[in-house]
Amino acid sequence: MTKLEMTEAIITAKLEKGTTWEAVGKAIGLSDIFTASACLGQNSLSKEDATKLAKLLDLGNDVVTALTVCPMKGLDTDLVSKDPLIYRFYEIAYVYGGAIKECIHEKFGDGIMSAIDFTCDIEKQEDPKGDRVVVTMNGKFLPYKKW
Amino acid sequence: MTKLEMTEAIITAKLEKGTTWEAVGKAIGLSDIFTASACLGQNSLSKEDATKLAKLLDLGNDVVTALTVCPMKGLDTDLVSKDPLIYRFYEIAYVYGGAIKECIHEKFGDGIMSAIDFTCDIEKQEDPKGDRVVVTMNGKFLPYKKW
Amino acid sequence: MTKLEMTEAIITAKLEKGTTWEAVGKAIGLSDIFTASACLGQNSLSKEDATKLAKLLDLGNDVVTALTVCPMKGLDTDLVSKDPLIYRFYEIAYVYGGAIKECIHEKFGDGIMSAIDFTCDIEKQEDPKGDRVVVTMNGKFLPYKKW
Amino acid sequence: MTKLEMTEAIITAKLEKGTTWEAVGKAIGLSDIFTASACLGQNSLSKEDATKLAKLLDLGNDVVTALTVCPMKGLDTDLVSKDPLIYRFYEIAYVYGGAIKECIHEKFGDGIMSAIDFTCDIEKQEDPKGDRVVVTMNGKFLPYKKW
Amino acid sequence: MTKLEMTEAIITAKLEKGTTWEAVGKAIGLSDIFTASACLGQNSLSKEDATKLAKLLDLGNDVVTALTVCPMKGLDTDLVSKDPLIYRFYEIAYVYGGAIKECIHEKFGDGIMSAIDFTCDIEKQEDPKGDRVVVTMNGKFLPYKKW
Amino acid sequence: MTKLEMTEAIITAKLEKGTTWEAVGKAIGLSDIFTASACLGQNSLSKEDATKLAKLLDLGNDVVTALTVCPMKGLDTDLVSKDPLIYRFYEIAYVYGGAIKECIHEKFGDGIMSAIDFTCDIEKQEDPKGDRVVVTMNGKFLPYKKW
Amino acid sequence: MTKLEMTEAIITAKLEKGTTWEAVGKAIGLSDIFTASACLGQNSLSKEDATKLAKLLDLGNDVVTALTVCPMKGLDTDLVSKDPLIYRFYEIAYVYGGAIKECIHEKFGDGIMSAIDFTCDIEKQEDPKGDRVVVTMNGKFLPYKKW
Amino acid sequence: MTKLEMTEAIITAKLEKGTTWEAVGKAIGLSDIFTASACLGQNSLSKEDATKLAKLLDLGNDVVTALTVCPMKGLDTDLVSKDPLIYRFYEIAYVYGGAIKECIHEKFGDGIMSAIDFTCDIEKQEDPKGDRVVVTMNGKFLPYKKW
Amino acid sequence: MTKLEMTEAIITAKLEKGTTWEAVGKAIGLSDIFTASACLGQNSLSKEDATKLAKLLDLGNDVVTALTVCPMKGLDTDLVSKDPLIYRFYEIAYVYGGAIKECIHEKFGDGIMSAIDFTCDIEKQEDPKGDRVVVTMNGKFLPYKKW
Amino acid sequence: MTKLEMTEAIITAKLEKGTTWEAVGKAIGLSDIFTASACLGQNSLSKEDATKLAKLLDLGNDVVTALTVCPMKGLDTDLVSKDPLIYRFYEIAYVYGGAIKECIHEKFGDGIMSAIDFTCDIEKQEDPKGDRVVVTMNGKFLPYKKW
Repeated sequence: MTKLEMTEAIITAKLEKGTTWEAVGKAIGLSDIFTASACLGQNSLSKEDATKLAKLLDLGNDVVTALTVCPMKGLDTDLVSKDPLIYRFYEIAYVYGGAIKECIHEKFGDGIMSAIDFTCDIEKQEDPKGDRVVVTMNGKFLPYKKW
Repeated sequence: MTKLEMTEAIITAKLEKGTTWEAVGKAIGLSDIFTASACLGQNSLSKEDATKLAKLLDLGNDVVTALTVCPMKGLDTDLVSKDPLIYRFYEIAYVYGGAIKECIHEKFGDGIMSAIDFTCDIEKQEDPKGDRVVVTMNGKFLPYKKW
Repeated sequence: MTKLEMTEAIITAKLEKGTTWEAVGKAIGLSDIFTASACLGQNSLSKEDATKLAKLLDLGNDVVTALTVCPMKGLDTDLVSKDPLIYRFYEIAYVYGGAIKECIHEKFGDGIMSAIDFTCDIEKQEDPKGDRVVVTMNGKFLPYKKW
Repeated sequence: MTKLEMTEAIITAKLEKGTTWEAVGKAIGLSDIFTASACLGQNSLSKEDATKLAKLLDLGNDVVTALTVCPMKGLDTDLVSKDPLIYRFYEIAYVYGGAIKECIHEKFGDGIMSAIDFTCDIEKQEDPKGDRVVVTMNGKFLPYKKW
Repeated sequence: MTKLEMTEAIITAKLEKGTTWEAVGKAIGLSDIFTASACLGQNSLSKEDATKLAKLLDLGNDVVTALTVCPMKGLDTDLVSKDPLIYRFYEIAYVYGGAIKECIHEKFGDGIMSAIDFTCDIEKQEDPKGDRVVVTMNGKFLPYKKW
Repeated sequence: MTKLEMTEAIITAKLEKGTTWEAVGKAIGLSDIFTASACLGQNSLSKEDATKLAKLLDLGNDVVTALTVCPMKGLDTDLVSKDPLIYRFYEIAYVYGGAIKECIHEKFGDGIMSAIDFTCDIEKQEDPKGDRVVVTMNGKFLPYKKW
Repeated sequence: MTKLEMTEAIITAKLEKGTTWEAVGKAIGLSDIFTASACLGQNSLSKEDATKLAKLLDLGNDVVTALTVCPMKGLDTDLVSKDPLIYRFYEIAYVYGGAIKECIHEKFGDGIMSAIDFTCDIEKQEDPKGDRVVVTMNGKFLPYKKW
Repeated sequence: MTKLEMTEAIITAKLEKGTTWEAVGKAIGLSDIFTASACLGQNSLSKEDATKLAKLLDLGNDVVTALTVCPMKGLDTDLVSKDPLIYRFYEIAYVYGGAIKECIHEKFGDGIMSAIDFTCDIEKQEDPKGDRVVVTMNGKFLPYKKW
Repeated sequence: MTKLEMTEAIITAKLEKGTTWEAVGKAIGLSDIFTASACLGQNSLSKEDATKLAKLLDLGNDVVTALTVCPMKGLDTDLVSKDPLIYRFYEIAYVYGGAIKECIHEKFGDGIMSAIDFTCDIEKQEDPKGDRVVVTMNGKFLPYKKW
Repeated sequence: MTKLEMTEAIITAKLEKGTTWEAVGKAIGLSDIFTASACLGQNSLSKEDATKLAKLLDLGNDVVTALTVCPMKGLDTDLVSKDPLIYRFYEIAYVYGGAIKECIHEKFGDGIMSAIDFTCDIEKQEDPKGDRVVVTMNGKFLPYKKW
């Protein structure tokens, strides 16, 4: 079973059960975003978590195996997404990327924010002028090693 | 004076004064990131704020004018940056973009997080295992209009 | 049922019924363009509207479900379309994009026309020298937030 | 004098005079968008109109000549602009391009909207929930010739 | 039946009948090039012409329908073809494109040759030093509208 | 003197003299298109023709030398031009390229039309419904060698 | 039968027979390279040669027909191959392309080496320090026509 | 002195002296192609050869130094050249690359022809039907190491 | 059996057997990396090694044949991988490529490290602050031939 | 002083002094590769190290400042380098990237080798059959965080 077939099986089961990423994530003790990223074939789960997830969605052992394989990430992704929701993150990099770089260097020195030792969280902030999406990214600072 | 020349003038003055984006931002009542983005030619300032900024850095009227012009944004930017710090935001979009999309739709319905009615903030979270960079993005949810 | 299969099912049914986007749209209370965009898999419908549409075209429940899923937009689209009709919109952006930007900034200040809180309408203007296509785009102005 | 130098001269003069594209256009009997497109080097003016424009802005004969040359259009333009305001027109083509194509064919048959025998107009529609940008594109329908 | 399946059906039938584009075109009163372009899925035929063509090649009604649909043109085409015969037209644009532009502007003013109100014809010119291909393109001149 | 500087010198002189490519070409016994292509740095002239051309435009010996150098062709050219006049030739290749290929093979067998042993001519065909541009391309047929 | 299916049939048959391109070529009186290029779908054979080849490999009439069709060349090929053996030819063009151009112009004047009236041959040159691959390309010189 | 400035100095001197790559190469004991590639900044010379070359062309010590620096190769080169002479080598790779790969593997096994331990030679083969360019490439076969 | 089908068969068998690349490699006397590269279709094995490998994994003769075919390398690979683990090697080339080039030239002169006469090895270096990946690449130095 | 000007100043001084990256690195207590990467504008130095380096090469304070600025990395770098020495690292990623990924996951689990907490070393391994380049990359393993 390829990662693609795995994703289709999970999405179909999730639609049929009428459940959410948040509920699926809670059941296996993981956040909605990480759970979704694993189900979309961009991350791997431990055998234990994969088994819980498969049970929850009444899926077979092939899904469990597929979920535990280390995926070739970013494979079914455009270089720059044309989906308006995802594109906005590229636009943020175009408009604010240089400024973010300046401010991280100002606060931390030469280095980067890790995208591996990294978590990401989405909150809904209610607002009478229109609710707001709050995305919190939290990554370990990695200083450039000099040798 | 082009935006490029404006940026060079500001960066040179900022280095000479030994000041920071945070200090410059505070002096004009704006965040470090927005201030840096305007100085890098990706956003515009009001005449009043531009004047304050120019005074602070001992820069002339041509810098004030250049800061108030609406810029052609994203102009001096690669399609996908090769700078490791900035690239990580593209990598986040590759690995977590689909999951973020799923979770925003789950919480808000069909629509996007605005990158215009938008703020962005960077915090240093101290941690004995290595300090962490916390980037908080806050954008208005815009539901897709049906007509 | 994928969005692609959904589109094929709808197009086939529409050809067999010999109906039009305008007629389909009217039956569900939406414009021809928005209806077509949803049927082409670029927008989602409410369950209610999707159900009406499926009935009208004698299509099953899987089409209803597929129509309500938030789509990955712009997925089956070239970066720049080579179709002459669609390319002309890219050409307008190449030739008039800078001028449109100048004039919107002149009338509204720094910001953009939303493509989300947005409607679009096509009219046929009869003309003895050759009928004319009139495309009216109407999007909310979003001023750039400073913080 | 190249088109680029011409544009710089005009923009500088326009900023100094504190005038607008609308005012410049009116003075030579043309719309703001067409006037701006010519001044940005994407269209040519007649000798008469170019002379009026140069006088209005106190510019020399080299600007007049440069304005009348047929330009190499789209030359200083990205394949897909990263400027948020201009990008939205590409996004409209990604999300609604197919639907617009369907609806034009439905109303006119096989053919295209001309981007040459074409006008474009921008209006500000005041709205308490946020003003709206109304872009009206009007192009001759050109049916595909069969031979 | 998709345009691709339509093309395969027509090409197969044409090979079996041992006929030519010229013969097929003559039978429906159209040129060889336009006929071939429609059969390759790049143009549409009227119901009448499509019916004649299908009869000639003993093909069914699904081919007739497919031939009358307005196609998404340029879809199965490389940005720049690597086929040597087709590439030469790109090479002509690289080497002579600027010169052709200069000479059309010299003879007609600012505007373009239409590729929609357009015909194209290929003749074999016998020559003892090697036969020559003569391609005649004939398109309406469209002057740039100023408004 | 680079080819670029040569082109600028020639264009400036041509504008000052108020002459045309047709007149320049006639004076040296060459067509307007080939003359323009050489002056735009895409072809070379013999020393004799280059000398005549330089005299006609009151230009120096460096222009003569530059005109005789075999140029690196296609150097200052986009992969696909965004200029509407030149783009139409790419669009012709997208929409009619396959059909032209079919018809040349039908008439000549496997091979190509040379773009080197090649001439190109532009005529103005007057027409009450709008003048027409007639482009005649004439290239030697080169059959594919089998060995 | 598509060219792709034809290639698969031939490769499979060739592996089963345990024969070589050289042997196949000899049997039909053609070189190994041209024979391989036709079998890979990049060139066409005469009906006679195709029939001989099919007999030799015990293949059917559909392979004969497929071999005689003029192919859309370069279709299943990357813009720049990542295969190390093929890439080296691109690298030769990067490192020596300019020098080869200079030396051909020095010896022949302005023009090109034809890739159509062209043969190519590969020899193994034994060498104690490591055998050498000798590739001989032989193409007609085509001088640029001036008109 | 950059490699670019070095190339300009050498080309200018070569034009003034009216000499050829063949003559320059002979004087320093190297082939025309390798000499030209070094002068175009794609290869380096030994100090001894560089000194001879500079003397021959009456050039200074800075040219000697620049010629001995190991260059960043392929830097001022398009991914795929649009110059017709150089493009033909890409076309050969598109049309014959697969066949060349098959035949080299047939004769040598798995491995490549080196483009480093490599020579290249151009001969003029006189022919009444049109002279022919003979390019001989000679590279060491490098078998793929298995470990 | 294509290389793709071969890879799927091997990966499936390897998962079922619960074995590792290291174990598979040892059984046939090759390293884990070279073994994996051959199984992923990027290198070929000798008939003897392929037979051993197939036996070990209980696979058929078609896998043996497929493993011995010289592959079209780099075929199913992005130009620049978006997988974070693989991308880091591109990032190393962006950040350290120039420095590596400088240091190799300093130690060896003008030439390259072969990627054909090449081995690669991965070691786990245990470290209390986090284990380290040690990649050792070992390639023959090939000096640039001058002729 | 931009990073580009800084690099030119350092390279010129280094050539004049006839020194090496190894010697420069030793003088400031850093490896040759890291030192070269900083001098090429891809890494930053501490003020102390920058001062030592500038003294060693008799360079001014502006070089010291420029060396300490956090650079926009990868800026003057092609997406895929055409330089043969650097390209080989891309080729290694194409041919062995998948295998390296498999083996790192086998030894370490899901995660990556850091290119930030990373060192790189080049050794010359003498060999009678041709010296060998040994590149040792050593990066911290970063396991993918699950949350």
